[in-house]
Amino acid sequence: MSNLEIRGATTEDIPAIVAMLADDPLGARRESPDDLAPYLAAFERITSDGGQRLVVAVRDGRTVGTLQLTVIPGLSRQGATRSIIEAVRIHADERGGGLGTQLIEWAVDESRREGCVLVQLTSDATRTDAHRFYERLGFEASHVGFKLAL
Amino acid sequence: MSNLEIRGATTEDIPAIVAMLADDPLGARRESPDDLAPYLAAFERITSDGGQRLVVAVRDGRTVGTLQLTVIPGLSRQGATRSIIEAVRIHADERGGGLGTQLIEWAVDESRREGCVLVQLTSDATRTDAHRFYERLGFEASHVGFKLAL
Repeated sequence: MSNLEIRGATTEDIPAIVAMLADDPLGARRESPDDLAPYLAAFERITSDGGQRLVVAVRDGRTVGTLQLTVIPGLSRQGATRSIIEAVRIHADERGGGLGTQLIEWAVDESRREGCVLVQLTSDATRTDAHRFYERLGFEASHVGFKLAL
Repeated sequence: MSNLEIRGATTEDIPAIVAMLADDPLGARRESPDDLAPYLAAFERITSDGGQRLVVAVRDGRTVGTLQLTVIPGLSRQGATRSIIEAVRIHADERGGGLGTQLIEWAVDESRREGCVLVQLTSDATRTDAHRFYERLGFEASHVGFKLAL
């Protein structure tokens, strides 16, 4: 567990992030790791949006985890700001080793620093291991997540 | 169904929006419509965030519906931008009259204009009528929504 750093992603991290997105039962069908152009364009959009934090976990110089945090101001719950965690991925070599917990705890701490009163995320209904993981961290499966592809 | 306008919210709309947020089985416990200060402060945060669209539906001069749309650029799904719909409320006088459908269709159209490939939202597990409503509009209940209060 030596030398773990969680920091903002840079352009140089994109190939490793995309490789993690693709190395996943659902991601394998959705990603195109051989063509980085759409990812680099998306990274520009992310970095120019002040509400976004795309981070990587780096251990001994290797990118081993990633997640994206979005801070959303809102009116409901007496003007509460909330955050949304998306695109959590842990490198295959690190799964089960506690890195996922460290990344989510980073996101929760960062959300507190940003004044959020609520952290939320959705997880595909088929990812039952992930559901148990989030419940162990104190998240409550209180909602149904709906998606519409355009 | 005359004279319906869907437009960006202004400060003058905040009392009517807060009244709708509070006139709800879950919102009744969470909102404080007698003290608008936290909502006005939150509205400032929303309007200064380029990723947010807080809209109202106005019929014959009355504010009868609201929702908030957040546009989120991301890396996953080949650099897909997605949108999230939050805080959908329809005035009690208008429920069942098709306004919810019009508001969600506005959000879907706006998401397309913003280049989104996915629209998502979460709905409290107890809101079973809302779940049927979103499924009729083509949304798929594919995910579990987790929340952690800070």
